[in-house]
Amino acid sequence: MGKALAVSPLAPASFPDLPVIDGVRFSTIAAGVRYQGRTDVMLALLDPGTAVAGAFTRSATRSAPVLDCQEKINGDVDSAGAAILVNSGNSNAFTGKGGVEAVRAIADATAQATGVPQARVFTSSTGVIGEPLPFDRITAKLDALAGTLDAGGISEAAKAIMTTDTFPKGAAAEVSIDGKTVRIAGIAKGSGMIAPDMATMLVYIFTDAKIARNDLQALVSAGNDSTFNCITVDSDTSTSDTLLVAATGASGVDVTGHDGFAGALHGVMLDLAHQVVRDGEGATKFVEISVTGARTARDAKTHALSVANSPLVKTAIAGEDANWGRVVMAVGKSGAEADRDLLSIRFGDVLVADKGWVSPGYSEADAAAHMKGENLRIAVDIGLGDGTATVWTCDLTHGYIDINADYRS
Amino acid sequence: MGKALAVSPLAPASFPDLPVIDGVRFSTIAAGVRYQGRTDVMLALLDPGTAVAGAFTRSATRSAPVLDCQEKINGDVDSAGAAILVNSGNSNAFTGKGGVEAVRAIADATAQATGVPQARVFTSSTGVIGEPLPFDRITAKLDALAGTLDAGGISEAAKAIMTTDTFPKGAAAEVSIDGKTVRIAGIAKGSGMIAPDMATMLVYIFTDAKIARNDLQALVSAGNDSTFNCITVDSDTSTSDTLLVAATGASGVDVTGHDGFAGALHGVMLDLAHQVVRDGEGATKFVEISVTGARTARDAKTHALSVANSPLVKTAIAGEDANWGRVVMAVGKSGAEADRDLLSIRFGDVLVADKGWVSPGYSEADAAAHMKGENLRIAVDIGLGDGTATVWTCDLTHGYIDINADYRS
Repeated sequence: MGKALAVSPLAPASFPDLPVIDGVRFSTIAAGVRYQGRTDVMLALLDPGTAVAGAFTRSATRSAPVLDCQEKINGDVDSAGAAILVNSGNSNAFTGKGGVEAVRAIADATAQATGVPQARVFTSSTGVIGEPLPFDRITAKLDALAGTLDAGGISEAAKAIMTTDTFPKGAAAEVSIDGKTVRIAGIAKGSGMIAPDMATMLVYIFTDAKIARNDLQALVSAGNDSTFNCITVDSDTSTSDTLLVAATGASGVDVTGHDGFAGALHGVMLDLAHQVVRDGEGATKFVEISVTGARTARDAKTHALSVANSPLVKTAIAGEDANWGRVVMAVGKSGAEADRDLLSIRFGDVLVADKGWVSPGYSEADAAAHMKGENLRIAVDIGLGDGTATVWTCDLTHGYIDINADYRS
Repeated sequence: MGKALAVSPLAPASFPDLPVIDGVRFSTIAAGVRYQGRTDVMLALLDPGTAVAGAFTRSATRSAPVLDCQEKINGDVDSAGAAILVNSGNSNAFTGKGGVEAVRAIADATAQATGVPQARVFTSSTGVIGEPLPFDRITAKLDALAGTLDAGGISEAAKAIMTTDTFPKGAAAEVSIDGKTVRIAGIAKGSGMIAPDMATMLVYIFTDAKIARNDLQALVSAGNDSTFNCITVDSDTSTSDTLLVAATGASGVDVTGHDGFAGALHGVMLDLAHQVVRDGEGATKFVEISVTGARTARDAKTHALSVANSPLVKTAIAGEDANWGRVVMAVGKSGAEADRDLLSIRFGDVLVADKGWVSPGYSEADAAAHMKGENLRIAVDIGLGDGTATVWTCDLTHGYIDINADYRS
């Protein structure tokens, strides 16, 4: 990265106080993979008996660490525990046979330093694509990482995994079950190359809940569909997206089939997904696009993402212009069913277009007032059926061009 | 439009000398539809016996004039001739019942002023979406338009249909058949909201060839697929795209089944399509993306358009960065089949990546030298089959944001 970026105007006021999750400890270090003067590797060590579930990019050119995680994620829970090792600065993507060897070397070194079996070491790499990962800089630090593990280290971990992020991302929840407290804490990185499925996103969520791996995987897969797979910054999909959720069971509370836990986990996922959009490269507006009345839920999501990914809609939002004509255009091009003369569109609470034509009571001043805010809502009713979807995006600004026209310089 | 735009650096040196096409005359006028101080309406009057074929946007929210053209395009050739009436400044799209009435009023007035039946009057409107078209400003000028028709007026017509275009677009060809000359001349407008199928594009091509309507339509449909449907500026698709091709027959030369004529018509279409990309909003680079070795031709076009539409690829090109990792990303996300370890990528003649990894002989300096040019070529070999496709796009720059964040202001 050529220059330090100003913190996104959409960032939360501060990093949240994340609770300690029994059964997991963190450490970070500055290994100099690419960046200087900052940490760039994080280790999370999970106690024996921890269940790990995940979701990954669907890119056909997935990175070596993603392919390795996908092979391991369905493995048995091992009594020796598990580890997550992440570096920033280099994504080890499209690095040929050397990329596979780098993953193996890092996993081996992590196994050796932590005592966790190699088959239970999950690695992620994020940063530039297509350059060899100098993995020896990471393996050289593993003993130091294993020697400095700290149950309170999650906020430092959130910083070590950042790339073009302008703020670290964290979220937490607590659920009370039978008088006992179950805790969830998660961190994420991601700010560009964000689009389903999934995004240039690394997300690690930890809980002390007790739950079988398959049950946890079901919650993660379902939650992913309505959170991380419903955000887009630039329609580009990373080769490295990874979501891992680890349940240590240390609370002793079995959450299987417990709606409160499922809801809390979903809430943490949604919070982190929103923070990724709020750190969208160059973003100055956070935009919720909700579609109702589509023929199917799938059609609704197609329409919503078409609006959310349209450069013309996103530049209009940057210009604080309630340009509903561009919303019509984006619905029209999506490929999903629509009828021009049934469309209704709201910006915030302002009904702009009603059944295919500008609303009789429409006040451009009211719509313009909504557009000046930081948190915008665009609602489109297709008028054909019961399908609904909500997605989140940001505007497209000069900042996006600044960041991406010289990322490698 | 808030301000005059500088002419695209990719514009041709000058507007070409377009030949007079026997059987068609043009006139233009300043009707003040939206713009001041420039012409904004053009009329093309076609002699009796002219065959008209066309292609139109596939948007589900097509504008009223497009729907009207689609109804009329299959009609019989009328001995009374045909007319094309186009305004810029307002697209008459998403204007409800009023939009339909506006088209009817303009077509009626054109019929009355020219003597052409209303069913043979084709109209197009381009500009802002969703605002009522002040059609009375146009109908008031029709007698003046009909009274100033000129066989040499095509270059003025090219200017009258411009919106955010920074230069008028024209192309021509001549074919010699049996010692006689058949002439083709076309004009186009379009610079943003450009993506298959088709683009914010209006294209009118005229020829004195003699050819039946159905044969002409077959040539137009086939040519459209490899020209206007292979360009993209911003992945956004207009509700107003219209291509009309009129063959007056005035040369007396029957071109049915003549490959030379088909090739010449295709050449004019491709030239105009390229000019639209060269006027892409904010464009500083013209980029050809060719894909070979895909499983099918359809897969090849999917990959090529995914690369051409990727904001990360387009900003890298703006930054003159041979960032082949982003090309890999775009191939990976396209949804078409690919294998990371079979991909090869060239920037210009420089082999950057070979079978999934950086080429042994790769020189970043050579690739960087290519990126500094105005006309760039990115070639991707998928390594799986025989499918090929070529598409054309431009870079994504600050200029695009400037133009689109305040288009309505």
